[in-house]
Amino acid sequence: MKLKEFAARIGLSQTTVSRAMSGYPEVKPETRARVLEAAERLGYRPNISAQRLATGRAGAIGIVFQGGGRFGPHSSEFMGGLSTRLQKDGIDILVSTVETEADEAAAYRRLAASKRVDAVVVHTPKVADARIALLQKLGLPFVVHGRSEAERPFAFLDIDNFGAIATATEHLAGLGHRRIALINGDPANTYARDRDLGYRTALARRSLTADPALTGHGEFTDENGFRLMQGFLALPAPPTAVIAGSMMSALGAMRAIRIAGLAVGRDVSLIAHDDVFPYLSPENFVPPVTTTQSPIRSAGERIGDLVLRLLRGEAPKALQEIWPVDFRVRGSTGPAPG
Amino acid sequence: MKLKEFAARIGLSQTTVSRAMSGYPEVKPETRARVLEAAERLGYRPNISAQRLATGRAGAIGIVFQGGGRFGPHSSEFMGGLSTRLQKDGIDILVSTVETEADEAAAYRRLAASKRVDAVVVHTPKVADARIALLQKLGLPFVVHGRSEAERPFAFLDIDNFGAIATATEHLAGLGHRRIALINGDPANTYARDRDLGYRTALARRSLTADPALTGHGEFTDENGFRLMQGFLALPAPPTAVIAGSMMSALGAMRAIRIAGLAVGRDVSLIAHDDVFPYLSPENFVPPVTTTQSPIRSAGERIGDLVLRLLRGEAPKALQEIWPVDFRVRGSTGPAPG
Repeated sequence: MKLKEFAARIGLSQTTVSRAMSGYPEVKPETRARVLEAAERLGYRPNISAQRLATGRAGAIGIVFQGGGRFGPHSSEFMGGLSTRLQKDGIDILVSTVETEADEAAAYRRLAASKRVDAVVVHTPKVADARIALLQKLGLPFVVHGRSEAERPFAFLDIDNFGAIATATEHLAGLGHRRIALINGDPANTYARDRDLGYRTALARRSLTADPALTGHGEFTDENGFRLMQGFLALPAPPTAVIAGSMMSALGAMRAIRIAGLAVGRDVSLIAHDDVFPYLSPENFVPPVTTTQSPIRSAGERIGDLVLRLLRGEAPKALQEIWPVDFRVRGSTGPAPG
Repeated sequence: MKLKEFAARIGLSQTTVSRAMSGYPEVKPETRARVLEAAERLGYRPNISAQRLATGRAGAIGIVFQGGGRFGPHSSEFMGGLSTRLQKDGIDILVSTVETEADEAAAYRRLAASKRVDAVVVHTPKVADARIALLQKLGLPFVVHGRSEAERPFAFLDIDNFGAIATATEHLAGLGHRRIALINGDPANTYARDRDLGYRTALARRSLTADPALTGHGEFTDENGFRLMQGFLALPAPPTAVIAGSMMSALGAMRAIRIAGLAVGRDVSLIAHDDVFPYLSPENFVPPVTTTQSPIRSAGERIGDLVLRLLRGEAPKALQEIWPVDFRVRGSTGPAPG
């Protein structure tokens, strides 16, 4: 059955039928339900090309992950927020997983060429990130979760990583801590660079020197938090405070502190950055953990908004947001010992 | 530029070009890279319909989530495994998020009608699950993560939830515990029904009665684990042992036990089901947690295999797997007190 015949049989225009079946938002839910029910009953299968021609949209947003291992607690919260927002407009998310950086570039080329998505969301940008220039060249609309340096403006949402870690470092310095450690991410990533800058700037303001032996890098896992903290505590002059990049790193760091026979909040103060995981709340740690806090789920929702505004024709440079980060003092921080 | 002209200019067959651009597996990576590079350079944009006609495939697998809130630690591990497997064949995952059960049915109809996916993965099946009959009627291939009761056979992978919780319950009964609590999921879901059956069967074998006051249901969060455990401990005859449905529930339960001034492993024994989260390891709890264990990431990978075999024409009833669950005794379990 052709679109024309099907539309006539159910008494709707061809455009309405196409829009209803593409999942795009201009159609009332009842109309969509009626069209889908009729399509199933009458055995109507639309011609995808004709339908996309009618709506001009793929009805999906793409996101590319490098390595399935990248799916972790941060990605599920972010995807949860993004999908919650896109769902309201009936838009799906196309997830592509690739192995290498070169594969990721190929995936964007493929997405642009095949028109399977209307836009993509780029996550974990590097300070110098080839993906941005590539996407601009391909003409595939995109929003970046995070920041990067690029010649031409692009849409992004980032949190104030610099300010968050500067605040945390200043707070610890104000409590008399002089040896403050930092558990940070891969320094090629902008967020880790910004956190490092925040840390160094705050130390400098307090006339403290940043000791390279007190900074560690790695993925935000319990294991890395544990390993790095054990290393810090084995130094001739161990730190009396530590800033952990995530609640997962904090779990490991706290374990290392305890195993060393020290008490969190008394012998070693700890601050963690909390992306807000419903199952891992800083209030529920013993002692409750002082945090810099910004819900990554909300960032995902907001990026959904930005994508839709971009597709409605707003300029990328009008779609740039930097969110301040909350600071919450709890029991894991206290005056420097002795 | 038409496919014919583009293929001629780069000296490849039209079929090879179509396959390379669709991301399907029969094409060598070097050939795909060459085709994509040439398409970008020459400004070739394929006709999606022609391409799908050539390959007969959408190159994507669908998964529908009811509510963005369903994106949690389990879904990211599962998606990580699934995408790792599908990535090897260049296949993407199309994620649709919907609000209600009726919306979910509409989403499957839309996916079937629009041919945007070759198959779908169904998760968290209910004992009686309307999705299965619907997908069979729609002729959309699918694999279920979990089990359900249906007239016609379908492809699935499940873990032995019955056996896992029966083993855990028997172990506790063997240690002399008589009041054993169970923190379970929504009883409409098959996995929760099977766990409940395992629990009751093991109690009956040991001539113990199942006290309804010692079973709680809810999502597997820290908060629910805490709330349910506090309720159990407030009973006139509180339990001396508890089985938690996930590591998240275990976190909350352990907190409630500690707040009550009791020691885990001495006053109250605890066993948790561990889906294996790299950032929340039972060895790292204090005391280390006895678990029934099955990595949900591996289940995701294996379901990717099953989907591909289904698409290659294997019969659904030949694609049914039930995985045994490991049992690991650690410090959180001990003899019943007194």
